[in-house]
Amino acid sequence: MEERRVSYHESVRSMYEKLHEMGISNVWDRYEAQGIGNDPDRRCRFCTGGMRCDFCSNGPCRADAETDKRGVCGISADGMAMRMMLLRNVMGASTYHYHCEAAVRTLRETALGTSPFRVSDPEKLKGFAGRLGLDTGTPIDELSLRLCTFVENDFARKSHEESRIVDFLAPAERKTVWRNLGIFPGGVYGEMMRATSSCLTNVDGDYVSLAKKALRLSVATAYQSQIVLEYLQDALFGTPAPHWMRVDLGVLDPDYVNVLPNGHEPFLGFALVDLARMPEWQERAVEAGAKGLRVIANIETGQEMVQRLDMDDVFWGYTGNWIMQEAVLATGAVDVFVADMNCSLPLDPVYAERFGFRIVAVSELVGLDGGTEHMDYDPARARETAAALLEMGIENFRRRHGTVTPVRGLPTRQAVVGFSPESIAAALGGGLEPLLDAIKDGSIRGVAGLVSCTSLRDSGQDVHSVAVASELIARDVLVLSMGCGNAAMQVAGLCTPDAAGRAGPGLKKVATALGIPPVLSFGTCTDTGRCADLLAAIGKALGGVAVPDLPVAAVAPEYMEQKATIDAIFALALGLYTYVNPVPTVTGAPGLVRLLTADLREITGGVLALEGDPAAAADGVLAHIEGRRNALGI
Amino acid sequence: MEERRVSYHESVRSMYEKLHEMGISNVWDRYEAQGIGNDPDRRCRFCTGGMRCDFCSNGPCRADAETDKRGVCGISADGMAMRMMLLRNVMGASTYHYHCEAAVRTLRETALGTSPFRVSDPEKLKGFAGRLGLDTGTPIDELSLRLCTFVENDFARKSHEESRIVDFLAPAERKTVWRNLGIFPGGVYGEMMRATSSCLTNVDGDYVSLAKKALRLSVATAYQSQIVLEYLQDALFGTPAPHWMRVDLGVLDPDYVNVLPNGHEPFLGFALVDLARMPEWQERAVEAGAKGLRVIANIETGQEMVQRLDMDDVFWGYTGNWIMQEAVLATGAVDVFVADMNCSLPLDPVYAERFGFRIVAVSELVGLDGGTEHMDYDPARARETAAALLEMGIENFRRRHGTVTPVRGLPTRQAVVGFSPESIAAALGGGLEPLLDAIKDGSIRGVAGLVSCTSLRDSGQDVHSVAVASELIARDVLVLSMGCGNAAMQVAGLCTPDAAGRAGPGLKKVATALGIPPVLSFGTCTDTGRCADLLAAIGKALGGVAVPDLPVAAVAPEYMEQKATIDAIFALALGLYTYVNPVPTVTGAPGLVRLLTADLREITGGVLALEGDPAAAADGVLAHIEGRRNALGI
Repeated sequence: MEERRVSYHESVRSMYEKLHEMGISNVWDRYEAQGIGNDPDRRCRFCTGGMRCDFCSNGPCRADAETDKRGVCGISADGMAMRMMLLRNVMGASTYHYHCEAAVRTLRETALGTSPFRVSDPEKLKGFAGRLGLDTGTPIDELSLRLCTFVENDFARKSHEESRIVDFLAPAERKTVWRNLGIFPGGVYGEMMRATSSCLTNVDGDYVSLAKKALRLSVATAYQSQIVLEYLQDALFGTPAPHWMRVDLGVLDPDYVNVLPNGHEPFLGFALVDLARMPEWQERAVEAGAKGLRVIANIETGQEMVQRLDMDDVFWGYTGNWIMQEAVLATGAVDVFVADMNCSLPLDPVYAERFGFRIVAVSELVGLDGGTEHMDYDPARARETAAALLEMGIENFRRRHGTVTPVRGLPTRQAVVGFSPESIAAALGGGLEPLLDAIKDGSIRGVAGLVSCTSLRDSGQDVHSVAVASELIARDVLVLSMGCGNAAMQVAGLCTPDAAGRAGPGLKKVATALGIPPVLSFGTCTDTGRCADLLAAIGKALGGVAVPDLPVAAVAPEYMEQKATIDAIFALALGLYTYVNPVPTVTGAPGLVRLLTADLREITGGVLALEGDPAAAADGVLAHIEGRRNALGI
Repeated sequence: MEERRVSYHESVRSMYEKLHEMGISNVWDRYEAQGIGNDPDRRCRFCTGGMRCDFCSNGPCRADAETDKRGVCGISADGMAMRMMLLRNVMGASTYHYHCEAAVRTLRETALGTSPFRVSDPEKLKGFAGRLGLDTGTPIDELSLRLCTFVENDFARKSHEESRIVDFLAPAERKTVWRNLGIFPGGVYGEMMRATSSCLTNVDGDYVSLAKKALRLSVATAYQSQIVLEYLQDALFGTPAPHWMRVDLGVLDPDYVNVLPNGHEPFLGFALVDLARMPEWQERAVEAGAKGLRVIANIETGQEMVQRLDMDDVFWGYTGNWIMQEAVLATGAVDVFVADMNCSLPLDPVYAERFGFRIVAVSELVGLDGGTEHMDYDPARARETAAALLEMGIENFRRRHGTVTPVRGLPTRQAVVGFSPESIAAALGGGLEPLLDAIKDGSIRGVAGLVSCTSLRDSGQDVHSVAVASELIARDVLVLSMGCGNAAMQVAGLCTPDAAGRAGPGLKKVATALGIPPVLSFGTCTDTGRCADLLAAIGKALGGVAVPDLPVAAVAPEYMEQKATIDAIFALALGLYTYVNPVPTVTGAPGLVRLLTADLREITGGVLALEGDPAAAADGVLAHIEGRRNALGI
């Protein structure tokens, strides 16, 4: 693959060269091989346009909106595209909620004293329980259990009964809009069932009705799954606060035992760090011939960890996002790859064989090509599992070190991580006022929540994400970055105070004065929920401005999978200008495209913006922000 | 479309001619238009083979097992095909369970006295509650509420906790197999989430692991969703018992007000019949110029109704299955088409406009092209909704009659409907012994559970279903028919005692002696669960024979949608020889094909059989049955 199509990051480009030369299957060569007619981005036009369906035995069918050619059942191209999009949304919602349920289970076991964890931030727990109407005067373990029961009861609420969590947490103006549209959700399980059932052949063939179901599901997911999950993880493992963190492939030193938690659920990651920080484990690693034992963070599990844990000699650093996974695995420095819930690639076992490491799935969800070794997460056994994984790492080091030729000299840099609603307020001196003042006086024109993955579609890993973020800060738009796209910012050097030099004059001044980066590392894709929470707080602090009227935008420069699609839909439900790239597979559905990119503005206030050029994309965001500023008279 | 490709039924063929001549979009012409190169059955080979994926922005991708070409993420053709199949299974499971929750809600409201229904068969309710370990000595309303709470708690059980419903209801031998395989399910919501989350990009890329998740979900669905649903509907609306029913398009008389409940959820259908049987409603219809007011049953809602309700002047008859829906709507005899949950086609509103009837969705799930009028089912308002629908029918008659030119003279015939585990025993003189004796002495070689839809793939509506059933009974295999495939049997005349003449000598003798048809009409696709229950009872009565060792088979000659796929997967989990046609879209996945058609036999005892020729398909079923008979020494 052409160098510019590989990655923004030099480290990754150099690893790709190695993989390509070795002839080992990798994401870049696989991407290129999918292209039709020597164009790596060209694929089947029906699949790309979303006007095809293979659900039932009368199909596979293709549709054509221009000639009104329909599926055998009679569904239109619009219906096909939106139905498949809804199904992708359900996949994203489901996976978020699976993670949320694991957090609830972990908190419950912790309160019962049967997990190795503790409630690290009881005030966070109390604050959240209070927002949900619970009596916070009870002891913390009791309160934890009540909170678990409260949220579980809400999850199980029927879809025709309103979610109390959404009612407690969402802004009043949004709740009215959602009720009027019939998209105020019930419990998330009922909503998932409602959406999934609607996708059955001959159930819902109307793209407008299907789109409303997606919006409704997204509201359930943001408040019930994402916010609950993040607050519970904060309570358990600490609320993020800004600190420095080593990043990029150079964090992998082959002379250490390296254990790599990977995925989205950080529970065992925290347990691994807790154990690995004990001298006895370090000593055992040294006895095995290593310089020590390190836990290296990866992807979203890594983001969950780095935003909450300080780096030290044990919790050493963070590699990057999912596309560079094979680059990580091919360094020859990995001992155990701990695959939780999502983001482990089917062919990882081939790398394990080739580069001498162990790969262990710690979630029942995970399946790798050719079978998978499982040590599934159970909070009551988290310490034992973590110990077994460290043990495995030390054992592996004995075999790996000296046998597998490692790659040395890969670059490392540092990034400031750990911004959260609380820590942003703290960094601003205790409240949001300095930020609000900077927005009001125009130094900062607005805020963009960047929630994205990374994709090889149209450009190399992180290339477009970095370009869009750079264009935004150059236009004095503060960026909050989340998800795998957050790693793009960190590794590309946008999450340092120095990067203020790349910002426009206003943002540069504010960032420099406050000593913060122009791109604030705000966690993972699950933090979308608390980003919405922050926007609501900003709107309130500005004197009751509705979210759609704020000078803010959602930005997804390299969306990849189905969590990203439900996040984008939620941004639309929340009433945000939502920039999404690459173009989703709905272009063969003109009615749907019109709904998302135009008509929705009059319905929820949200609008989908598509644009391949980073500068033009940032111009679009800025135009929206300036429009909101004008309307607000600031 | 060629005549032989349209339908088995003469009535439908004649209606197709009319539709085609009118140039109105219909399922047959749409099917033909999907064909590539003048072959109506030829479609994109990647879609047909299941080796394609459009989940993420790195795709759409195509895979090729022969060259080990994989998706960008690294997933194989096997992984792609099974993952999409699992997602289809989730759609089916979800829609079954949606129906089940509606039944639970209906029973609860009935027990609370807030629905217009009553518990018609308290003994059925007690028997079921007793099987679930509840104390049946309490008053029926109290017991109903306890049963509702018990099942709802089980539905909500986490996926890592075993379902108590499955534990109470499934055969011991199967439970051991499922536990050993790790496919004994938890609550159905957790199982749906587990399966759906596994389909996310980079979560489960292993077709074996994905297949196990499908099997596990199917067990949850069969026992929690299907059996609970059917027992609750029996308790509410009566356990089916054999009786005659008018069938085919001739049941539509344009001189009557005709209200047509359609779909899968029969609740409003029963409410409609209750009201329509009152003289005042008949009088109002007569005042409007009609000969009377009739409720005409359709598709699976119709099967739910016909198996439990006697026909009379009001509940007049049953039309047929889903493919003939446009034929029904074009008769010019319809006043209100009441679309519940599933099986209403996106373009039905075009027919409503053209043929002068009203179409009203009574489920929030339903969406029709261009927008939908909704009067969603709520048990507490069922009578009011039913009244409004009848009122609408009478109003519509005034406009329709004399304006829309109806089709007259369509054929009507009669079928015996209403076989259930209880009514089969009753028909056999009070117990299963006569059937078991006939199986033991070889008059009946075995039993085939036919659960199917209807599809235009490879042959016309019901053509292959009727052919396979005919071949089976000719080989002395008793057929229990369920689903849309059941309608095929009824309309084709196989569900009459007379049809014994088309059976082999043994089955003919037994059927004639007992006065039963050789094809027993056993209800809908949700009755799959209770069919499994019946098989378990037969195994027990034979002295503890495990289900896979019984001389029985599952047969799906024309599967169409996603409920059928989860049914087929459950048949495999139950350990059945499972004949499926048309060939599912997995042929590009050689590992998966081998697993389903061969290796699974050693795992669950189930095996998937594929065969396009009806006689050869029946030979395969018979060979399996004879093998089981030999092993049993009968």
